[in-house]
Amino acid sequence: MSRWNIRGRGEELENLILASNLFYHKHKVCRIDKAPTPVKVLEVVDGTKIVEGYFEKKSTVDFYGVVQGHFIAFDAKEVSTNSFPLKNIHPHQIEYMNDVENQGGISFLIVKFSKINRYFLLPFEILSEYYYRSLSNGRKSIPFLAFPEDLEIECFNGIRLKYLDTINSYLDWKEDYLVN
Amino acid sequence: MSRWNIRGRGEELENLILASNLFYHKHKVCRIDKAPTPVKVLEVVDGTKIVEGYFEKKSTVDFYGVVQGHFIAFDAKEVSTNSFPLKNIHPHQIEYMNDVENQGGISFLIVKFSKINRYFLLPFEILSEYYYRSLSNGRKSIPFLAFPEDLEIECFNGIRLKYLDTINSYLDWKEDYLVN
Repeated sequence: MSRWNIRGRGEELENLILASNLFYHKHKVCRIDKAPTPVKVLEVVDGTKIVEGYFEKKSTVDFYGVVQGHFIAFDAKEVSTNSFPLKNIHPHQIEYMNDVENQGGISFLIVKFSKINRYFLLPFEILSEYYYRSLSNGRKSIPFLAFPEDLEIECFNGIRLKYLDTINSYLDWKEDYLVN
Repeated sequence: MSRWNIRGRGEELENLILASNLFYHKHKVCRIDKAPTPVKVLEVVDGTKIVEGYFEKKSTVDFYGVVQGHFIAFDAKEVSTNSFPLKNIHPHQIEYMNDVENQGGISFLIVKFSKINRYFLLPFEILSEYYYRSLSNGRKSIPFLAFPEDLEIECFNGIRLKYLDTINSYLDWKEDYLVN
């Protein structure tokens, strides 16, 4: 048996987002929460202590919430490569994000390129385009150049991401995307 | 050590809602998911098996999702009493529902009165009114008569709840509530 360490990879990014969420919540601009990791519980003692359980696959994305009536759902991914490998996203997460978009919600990824220490909002439109192309023998990753420059996310003093500003830019981006 | 049984109380109601969500999803009318129960994991073996963990308190509500762009968040409660005891709801859940409403989302409870086998959508407006009054020595439960009759939820063939119809009625109810 070994003590469990919370996965290091991506933890910094998650903490940045949690800090952003707290900040936004405090200033009443939105309410975004992290969905708990699903656990299948098989055995419990004393009604409180889990002694046998297993991690389950997520069928949604990590973060969800509401801003000015909009439903928001996103996942956060950190990559050390120069492109975004599509194996980072599971098919049922694509399905989830697709459902959200079809219902008029807003869905995207926040991607950190750790080599260059830059954060981007990746629109679901681009993600799904590359994802479905990859299924029919297209490339298995999204190149850096496919990430819209306008959707870079500012990291404020290294303590939180100003991602709500970027969601606003994303809404503008969406309009252009639909027209073109 | 005893085998863990999934809590029986409220399970039937939860299953009805899960069946409704599947049906709605299949017909592409909304995407509503159950948030996993948060578990604090302390020890894992082989990277997958949890051998020490504890249930944590929820800071949100059980169900969340999107319908026609609206953010929806609700909890489901079954009571065997003639009124709804407010101890069924935790302070941080009231805070969550309040945040959702302030951000333009829609938040409510689905309550089953098991004695009479009837289901109701309880608007957050009514819940919070009684909740805050209870904090200043008001009654500790919501009487059955305070549940709007128009917001009774039809149970289709005992297999699912037609709660989306009731959300529509709730939106009408809200308009009247704001005017009066």
